Amino acid sequence: MDNNNGTTLIIMSGDMDKVMAALNIAIGAAAAGKETNMFFTFWGIKAIQKGTFTGHGLFGRMMGLLNRGGISRIGPSRFNFFGVGRWMFKQMMKNHKIPSLEELRKTAMELGVKFWPCQMSMDVMEIDREDLIEGVEQSCGVAAMLEMSDHSKQTLFI
Amino acid sequence: MDNNNGTTLIIMSGDMDKVMAALNIAIGAAAAGKETNMFFTFWGIKAIQKGTFTGHGLFGRMMGLLNRGGISRIGPSRFNFFGVGRWMFKQMMKNHKIPSLEELRKTAMELGVKFWPCQMSMDVMEIDREDLIEGVEQSCGVAAMLEMSDHSKQTLFI
Amino acid sequence: MDNNNGTTLIIMSGDMDKVMAALNIAIGAAAAGKETNMFFTFWGIKAIQKGTFTGHGLFGRMMGLLNRGGISRIGPSRFNFFGVGRWMFKQMMKNHKIPSLEELRKTAMELGVKFWPCQMSMDVMEIDREDLIEGVEQSCGVAAMLEMSDHSKQTLFI
Repeated sequence: MDNNNGTTLIIMSGDMDKVMAALNIAIGAAAAGKETNMFFTFWGIKAIQKGTFTGHGLFGRMMGLLNRGGISRIGPSRFNFFGVGRWMFKQMMKNHKIPSLEELRKTAMELGVKFWPCQMSMDVMEIDREDLIEGVEQSCGVAAMLEMSDHSKQTLFI
Repeated sequence: MDNNNGTTLIIMSGDMDKVMAALNIAIGAAAAGKETNMFFTFWGIKAIQKGTFTGHGLFGRMMGLLNRGGISRIGPSRFNFFGVGRWMFKQMMKNHKIPSLEELRKTAMELGVKFWPCQMSMDVMEIDREDLIEGVEQSCGVAAMLEMSDHSKQTLFI
Repeated sequence: MDNNNGTTLIIMSGDMDKVMAALNIAIGAAAAGKETNMFFTFWGIKAIQKGTFTGHGLFGRMMGLLNRGGISRIGPSRFNFFGVGRWMFKQMMKNHKIPSLEELRKTAMELGVKFWPCQMSMDVMEIDREDLIEGVEQSCGVAAMLEMSDHSKQTLFI
């Protein structure tokens, strides 16, 4: 495999703006013919969740409650103001004909971007395979992510 | 072009400390003879704005209001406390003879670091070309940023 | 030196979850035989501090007070809720047999990961050499970090 023809994105953030930036970079990389892998860890996993309630134990359920709603309920990293910021951002994006996070995610998948969930994060946050959207790859760990990165020209931590 | 003699920095954060880290890395890279490009997106654009009011529609103006003031009014990502933290940081930097963000930005420009504003962010946040400081390059998108990155040894998302 | 057999991590964040991600990546990289360097700057320095009070002047002491406690007192970037989140996270990690930050840091060191403190951050935040844990390398700056990065396949800003 070409040692430099890939882009690996590690998505740790669950913020609307950062997930949007990540998806835009992934789409740009895939459109340029690069093998593009997105590795979702911690809060980033929200971007590939269905949005249903998750968790088994007390803490997992609490986390699931705080984190519920899937990609369309993600707020920005700044100026969220209890959801007003999210709504405002969505309006601004719509006004300027920027696709929504759901549309960006769909486009990325159609362009062949691969979505990998981090196994350890799923364990700790008690997220099951069926809590994730269709089309994501099997869960994996740091070793697999580093291997993708070793075949990539750029690896970004977002 | 040498495939590895460059540094690309994607600045998404508008936090004082992260912008400072980015400028320090850019200056170090340029001083080491690397072709250094900084791509400013989302909140990061504040670091290259004049600080005047921006925005056309209601949302753009609200965003401009929240975001006004330019690089010298940026607060740290932690312990800002409504501006006290920013003031405290500046004092600490001054006490230890660390240059201000304005000075770092000027030094970076003098060393040939290129500053690229992200077109999509300017559209969404309703920031015009004349809202940006002198000396920045033309606005561009993810494809152009990835091309710079493909000629870089390191690409950082800040 | 092989130009591509290394991993450089710049740790700017002092958040529990991000430090944990960084240590996990470092351990994975070192286990895969890569020369792994972690460069701790700004808030990230907390991860290699003993946890004693730091600072000389008024501001340095205030910063030291806000930042005291070392790696075991670091809170997550989300849902901290004045320490409840940190406690909850630790419980979840324990329930799922994930090592603590202290254990991860120890494992990384045993695998040969090198820990570098950023000199400028130590100056600004008034942190002395004796405030840092045993086993960290000598403090250095951006130039040294970029040199490590130039011998690395991936450089991440965390």
